[in-house]
Amino acid sequence: MAKFPNSPSFTGVFEPIRIEGDVTDLDIEGEVPADLDGAFFRVQPDPKHPPLLGDDIAFNGDGMIAQFRFKDGRVDFKQRYVRTDKFNLEEKAGRALFGAYRNPLTDDPSVKGRYRGTANTNAFFHGGYLFGLKEDSPAVAMDANSLETFGYHDFDGQITSPTFTAHPKIDPETGDMCCFSYASKGLLTRDMVYWEITPEGKKTREVAFEIPYYAMMHDFGLTRDYALFHVVPITSSWERLQAGLPHFGFDTTMPVHLVVLPRGGDAKDIKMFTAPNLFASHVMNAFNDGTKIYFDTPEAKNNMFPFFPDIHGAPFNGPESASHLTRWTVDMDSNSGEFESRERLSEFVGEFPRMDERYNTEAYRHGWMLGMGMGPGSRASLGHVDTSTGQAKVWQAGANRALQEPCFIPKSKDAPEGEGYIVQIQQHQDDGKSDLLLFDAQHVDEGPMAAIHVPLRMRFGLHGNWVPGEELAKARRKTTQAVAA
Amino acid sequence: MAKFPNSPSFTGVFEPIRIEGDVTDLDIEGEVPADLDGAFFRVQPDPKHPPLLGDDIAFNGDGMIAQFRFKDGRVDFKQRYVRTDKFNLEEKAGRALFGAYRNPLTDDPSVKGRYRGTANTNAFFHGGYLFGLKEDSPAVAMDANSLETFGYHDFDGQITSPTFTAHPKIDPETGDMCCFSYASKGLLTRDMVYWEITPEGKKTREVAFEIPYYAMMHDFGLTRDYALFHVVPITSSWERLQAGLPHFGFDTTMPVHLVVLPRGGDAKDIKMFTAPNLFASHVMNAFNDGTKIYFDTPEAKNNMFPFFPDIHGAPFNGPESASHLTRWTVDMDSNSGEFESRERLSEFVGEFPRMDERYNTEAYRHGWMLGMGMGPGSRASLGHVDTSTGQAKVWQAGANRALQEPCFIPKSKDAPEGEGYIVQIQQHQDDGKSDLLLFDAQHVDEGPMAAIHVPLRMRFGLHGNWVPGEELAKARRKTTQAVAA
Repeated sequence: MAKFPNSPSFTGVFEPIRIEGDVTDLDIEGEVPADLDGAFFRVQPDPKHPPLLGDDIAFNGDGMIAQFRFKDGRVDFKQRYVRTDKFNLEEKAGRALFGAYRNPLTDDPSVKGRYRGTANTNAFFHGGYLFGLKEDSPAVAMDANSLETFGYHDFDGQITSPTFTAHPKIDPETGDMCCFSYASKGLLTRDMVYWEITPEGKKTREVAFEIPYYAMMHDFGLTRDYALFHVVPITSSWERLQAGLPHFGFDTTMPVHLVVLPRGGDAKDIKMFTAPNLFASHVMNAFNDGTKIYFDTPEAKNNMFPFFPDIHGAPFNGPESASHLTRWTVDMDSNSGEFESRERLSEFVGEFPRMDERYNTEAYRHGWMLGMGMGPGSRASLGHVDTSTGQAKVWQAGANRALQEPCFIPKSKDAPEGEGYIVQIQQHQDDGKSDLLLFDAQHVDEGPMAAIHVPLRMRFGLHGNWVPGEELAKARRKTTQAVAA
Repeated sequence: MAKFPNSPSFTGVFEPIRIEGDVTDLDIEGEVPADLDGAFFRVQPDPKHPPLLGDDIAFNGDGMIAQFRFKDGRVDFKQRYVRTDKFNLEEKAGRALFGAYRNPLTDDPSVKGRYRGTANTNAFFHGGYLFGLKEDSPAVAMDANSLETFGYHDFDGQITSPTFTAHPKIDPETGDMCCFSYASKGLLTRDMVYWEITPEGKKTREVAFEIPYYAMMHDFGLTRDYALFHVVPITSSWERLQAGLPHFGFDTTMPVHLVVLPRGGDAKDIKMFTAPNLFASHVMNAFNDGTKIYFDTPEAKNNMFPFFPDIHGAPFNGPESASHLTRWTVDMDSNSGEFESRERLSEFVGEFPRMDERYNTEAYRHGWMLGMGMGPGSRASLGHVDTSTGQAKVWQAGANRALQEPCFIPKSKDAPEGEGYIVQIQQHQDDGKSDLLLFDAQHVDEGPMAAIHVPLRMRFGLHGNWVPGEELAKARRKTTQAVAA
């Protein structure tokens, strides 16, 4: 029988939820525009089994994907686990078989060599598939309509890396999915591969390369002409894994690099720029003007991940973990090997940056972030940053409410940049309910135009995306058909 | 889009839940015996659509059945709506079509003449079917394993009444389901029918009869030789329905009757006994010793249902709604027309009486009830009443916890009376979680031996039953089979 530990990772708002189910026609306070047609997908780590090792970090849970289907002013809700190999193996065994986060040395011998992925980091749509993504394993393909899992997906044999990023990006000009893997030749290796894949699933580009040291290559930047990989010393080693330490630790003594791959080039064309130690994880957007490259990321002075502690033993430094949207500039024509500048774009303290992705790879103005200030208001505000002025419009949620990553939805295909909606999950930390909030993207400070009530707890979530109804209509189907007995 | 009203029936702990879903291997605190093999089914009213009339009473919701499947010390959870005709019609329309509780005059014209049942009162197993029951409509047959609905069930044409009780009883000697309908010739009629149906689904007895006045004939008593119908003036009239008053009201000016039908006889053999006005709804058990008949029911001086108000306008009288298990005695040999006695069996204030149903129709010793005392502890205690001494063992739940009807599970087929377990839903009124509590039935005062955590809110529930694993294995299946696309 399942007995979850009475530890912080599994109690209170972190208590697993584990229910796969459906609610049609969610209760709505306010109004949802009748012409909003599509689905918001978002994933939460939601441990199916008590941890093999007695305890775990809160985000090592199995990926549970929620689908909010908007149509005709109604919203239907569905959530399902991604059927990763891990999920299926553990379900069969009736217990956990995989141990600590990214440490196969802690696994049950019966699963040696199996993909360890939880698909708990992103729910991303491309080429008719919804992908459940975890960067330590291949992509898991799913039916975007039913949330049924097809299984691990190698793009018809075109992608052989054992890993696949949780942060692909769509090139808005071509519709291609630009993506990568790290630890591409095995755990802790410095090998990476960059790919571009058409909406029809054809791989049109593949570049293998190395980075200076093994690091958590969680996200990347994409411009019209370059793919940008920021190497930040969230790093690891076999010694850490053997010692049973958390896979990653942050090393304040190591430099940061921006590895720039020309999209038309090869590994030999890579240039690398170096900056002093700092912390950065997600990328708002990037763009280039000739050889001049701009890369926007929430940057902090020090580690933002308390669960991946300082590698030299320093205690977590709260104030230094505050991150501000920062523009890194490098010039491919420069041979200095250094950044040209790092400019703070806004005083708003936030992470989980998102923008109007029709402006991926291009100069852009509008960005939205989850507020990450210290204290009780942390993760409870939504900021809209105007990158042209640095001004931020901010909405603060109420007491006992926590917000998650925002996601932008354009008002229409050809609406001006930033005209549309923001959706954002709101967890109630007191009464076990949740909401999907819908904002006018240009007026988030006025509060949500609709609160779509979810009658159950949602756990903290990671990333999510909007998929238009016309894409859902064409999505690949895993058909199951009722047959009379 | 669904907009539920901001009224007491739809907010706080009454907020609808509406999620159909599954959680396998629930988190358990304590231990569940490994040999406990079967399922506890229980139904809650859970409104699928905002009420047609703008507001409603909390228990007019659609029946949502929860299944807790116990096996090998594990418990799996599943809940599904009963697909009543009402549910299907409203789902198709995307909104409520049926109006007030038991008032067809308030319905949308499109559903005139359709069964109005919500199947929200009991989840009862017999003859391989799980039945979702609401006394104003026929029984709805379901697959006990999958909770899929077959549909309204007329027992192969043997039962033609438009209504069917939510409280059938199993005769433990034969396994026959003894059951009845009221308002059998239409709404507000005084007509009733009594049936006995074998486990193979064959009707072996049918007696049509009349009662002195239309009343809510919610439960009944069954002894080896008699079927006992207590007529209590929770009554109605077309005038009430036309005026838009609650269907039922309680009339303190009218007498109570016990209508006794010899199971071997016919309508002409019925005898009726009369008592002064009182309130009684559920029946713990009944038995007879020759012509002497004992009928045990929680009896209150006055109305227990504030939502069915006093028919003459008196305000609800809290203290007088306190109910005690009371033994009514009548003698079929007596021609007085009166009760021989009404003896209070215990000082424990409770309702939702349940016993070891292997002792249905027989003299018995052990009963369990939900505590119904006034004040904050109401509906938050479990009492085990020893009918031979009147002593009660009581367990009081913690703050912000509410309990529901207990259900007894025998330890084994031939365990002595009352040896086994009690299961009982516990609602958390603060954090949106729930538990199924498991008690040693003989030691409820020692508190639960296991708390089986349900990671979502459960709404207030009505009745439920335990079905042994061997019965589930033989249950009728509604097969749906996956077919590759």
